[in-house]
Amino acid sequence: MRTIAIDSAQNERFRTWEKLLDGRGIRKHGAFLLAGRKTVPEALRAGPGRFTAVLAPDTPALETLDPLLPEGIARHVLARPLFERLDVSGTGLPILVGTVPEMPAIDPATAPQGLELVCALGDPANLGALLRSAAAFGVRRVLLLPDCAHPFHPKCLRAAANAVFRLEFRRLAGWKALDGATGPLFALDGGGHDLTVFAWPDDLRLVLGEEGQGLPDSLAARRLAIPTSGAVESLNATVAASIALQHWFSRRSA
Amino acid sequence: MRTIAIDSAQNERFRTWEKLLDGRGIRKHGAFLLAGRKTVPEALRAGPGRFTAVLAPDTPALETLDPLLPEGIARHVLARPLFERLDVSGTGLPILVGTVPEMPAIDPATAPQGLELVCALGDPANLGALLRSAAAFGVRRVLLLPDCAHPFHPKCLRAAANAVFRLEFRRLAGWKALDGATGPLFALDGGGHDLTVFAWPDDLRLVLGEEGQGLPDSLAARRLAIPTSGAVESLNATVAASIALQHWFSRRSA
Repeated sequence: MRTIAIDSAQNERFRTWEKLLDGRGIRKHGAFLLAGRKTVPEALRAGPGRFTAVLAPDTPALETLDPLLPEGIARHVLARPLFERLDVSGTGLPILVGTVPEMPAIDPATAPQGLELVCALGDPANLGALLRSAAAFGVRRVLLLPDCAHPFHPKCLRAAANAVFRLEFRRLAGWKALDGATGPLFALDGGGHDLTVFAWPDDLRLVLGEEGQGLPDSLAARRLAIPTSGAVESLNATVAASIALQHWFSRRSA
Repeated sequence: MRTIAIDSAQNERFRTWEKLLDGRGIRKHGAFLLAGRKTVPEALRAGPGRFTAVLAPDTPALETLDPLLPEGIARHVLARPLFERLDVSGTGLPILVGTVPEMPAIDPATAPQGLELVCALGDPANLGALLRSAAAFGVRRVLLLPDCAHPFHPKCLRAAANAVFRLEFRRLAGWKALDGATGPLFALDGGGHDLTVFAWPDDLRLVLGEEGQGLPDSLAARRLAIPTSGAVESLNATVAASIALQHWFSRRSA
């Protein structure tokens, strides 16, 4: 298997990979970078076909991954300073280049199957932790509003611990696209029905707005809330959503 | 009220404030920096006596806070580049300098009162989100292991939304200090008793280890777990702890 050495920051491939450090570049190129001591081998085992290239800081690092690399994957050894520009979480270990799955727009006339999360979280690390909870609590589909961070952003992937590969993503054109959607629509809010004693339906959409922002007043969703002591104004958005998902999962399993 | 202008990075006070951007400096100087559009006015209203100085990027910004500033607080206007070095979350609004409360070591012979969180979270933003959940779910006391991030680190304060001012902190010398502690001791773990159906006692200590690290095998604590789909190996540590706290709070309120 041939290995390509890359030493110049002007290299065309390197310039593309560097653009995958933000959502815009990921959207443009339809590719993402996956790093992580545990996540990289785990993702290679679970779905080697997702990955088109592997980038390593040196040959020994590349060789440690050899037994897991699919045939035909492009193997690169990058000069250390170039590698470090891509290794934003500082693992020092090989990084995979993967293909972002299609995320077609959803037809709101389609009824939800299970709990579908409707998400506008703008911070990729918060989104990643939420996707990890979503996969852990049996969510299969996530609908992304335009302001939502990209689920294949490196900070999201880092926090998600490979949960993105267990989820199906669909785009929503905006809040308006939820008007008249088929099936029950709920939203997490400071006030509303106590979700810890709520008779959750099996199939529903649960809306989670952007951190620190309210939901549009016009949103025709039933409000759900988590009772607290009142000592702080609100919970962290990812924490609140994870608590909701745990209660839905628990009720559904019962 | 006199306002002091500070234009030099060599200024003795500025040099001290800059050291408050990390846990070591906070520990050494016993002081912290609080920033935030909502948290600063809220903290001044709730406990003006905690704060010794206010730092602003210009006089108009300082004046917006005037009605809330206690008498005797030291008022400073900093040259913009100096201010920006302290304003790490980029609010552009006045920053408070506060006094870190005493955090005496706890005597493990003391029985827990309510749920006491025993915490080793190393990431200050994760710790902050957890402290926000802790205050929201009626925790009053948090025991900090030596590896735990500092609760008055700027990133922790930012995520905690003033929850730190509702909590009492105590130091623990290490895991060993929990051996033979009075009162029930529980730990969050991947395996163990299902905490969502657990008959929580009113008074207990709940141990939360460092992100991605296990707990010491020698820790004599009953293990509690959150059932999941198994699609991901584990939940985010802050999310898992928040779910546990919500269930304790819910059962206690019932």
